[in-house]
Amino acid sequence: MVPEPLSKLIDELTKLPGVGPKTAQRLAFHLLESSEPEVETLAGAIVHAKKTLKHCSLCFNVTDKDPCGLCQDIKRDASLVCVVADPKDLMALERTREFKGTFHVLGGLISPLDGVGPDDLRIRELLLRLESGQIKEIVVATNPSATGEATALYLAKLIKPLGVKITRLACGLPMGADLEYADEVTLSKALEGRREL
Amino acid sequence: MVPEPLSKLIDELTKLPGVGPKTAQRLAFHLLESSEPEVETLAGAIVHAKKTLKHCSLCFNVTDKDPCGLCQDIKRDASLVCVVADPKDLMALERTREFKGTFHVLGGLISPLDGVGPDDLRIRELLLRLESGQIKEIVVATNPSATGEATALYLAKLIKPLGVKITRLACGLPMGADLEYADEVTLSKALEGRREL
Repeated sequence: MVPEPLSKLIDELTKLPGVGPKTAQRLAFHLLESSEPEVETLAGAIVHAKKTLKHCSLCFNVTDKDPCGLCQDIKRDASLVCVVADPKDLMALERTREFKGTFHVLGGLISPLDGVGPDDLRIRELLLRLESGQIKEIVVATNPSATGEATALYLAKLIKPLGVKITRLACGLPMGADLEYADEVTLSKALEGRREL
Repeated sequence: MVPEPLSKLIDELTKLPGVGPKTAQRLAFHLLESSEPEVETLAGAIVHAKKTLKHCSLCFNVTDKDPCGLCQDIKRDASLVCVVADPKDLMALERTREFKGTFHVLGGLISPLDGVGPDDLRIRELLLRLESGQIKEIVVATNPSATGEATALYLAKLIKPLGVKITRLACGLPMGADLEYADEVTLSKALEGRREL
């Protein structure tokens, strides 16, 4: 009943994360109602991004040139390296415009339940970067979740003996939060990490 | 900071309905993590669907051949025509497997607030189909909303004088509903449309 090119398009769209059959159908009809140049621009952008983007050989961020813009930027402090799970976390940190160091993208977090061990992440590559002796501090910016904490602890155990300072993002109340509604774990972390005024 | 092919891809994805910057970013990274053939299949499906699909010249459903499969199907009752706003509504009705007639897609609903008048819909084309004298009943299957009701009333006024039976989908309680939680308008409609047992 549904013409083949339409059902094929809906099938392909359903493969995207968070896109179910209903959303895929809505997207497909939106595309059919768009002009042909608009549709071709979208399809072109998809193929072009996939073809030209790769990982920076230094920090493993997504980039179209190697080393990436962040690694090449001489205004950035190469002695300070922020370790993140993936490029999305890197982009979130960059949006703060606060961090002036460089990055290292692990490509995931240690998660034995999902079969992801330290060897599946770019930890070896991080240790190689440390060998140069140029790096003074590693900021571990993984999520404050079970897997994020496990990865941070693993890295601390590995890197501390090398004499490099290793820090972790602060945990506590998010800005604008209400003490009354804060969960116990966050509040405990906020107490534990209290700072002198 | 974001490489150009990636920001271009995110921009293009943000143009899709219901896709904000965060969703676009998640979709973009998903595509970058997919294999090149997978990505090309998606891009190809988008362009192919846009290039091959058009409107059936009879019922204005989306189709890759003209007339469409539904209009060509001799097992379908051509004397019974169901009028819908768009192909998505047609697909919803087809999923019931209950309707054995043919369709007519208006391409929208009368909505003066959005600047959509009867002349913007395929009402002239519906009247042309009625001229053949073959059609015995028109089932108006527009949403039970202000615009859907307005369109149904407009069609009734136009078609009744031609001596063609014109009906409307029943309004009432949806299956599995709870009387206690039903809204007043639906309940009034259910009372009004009560049927003898």
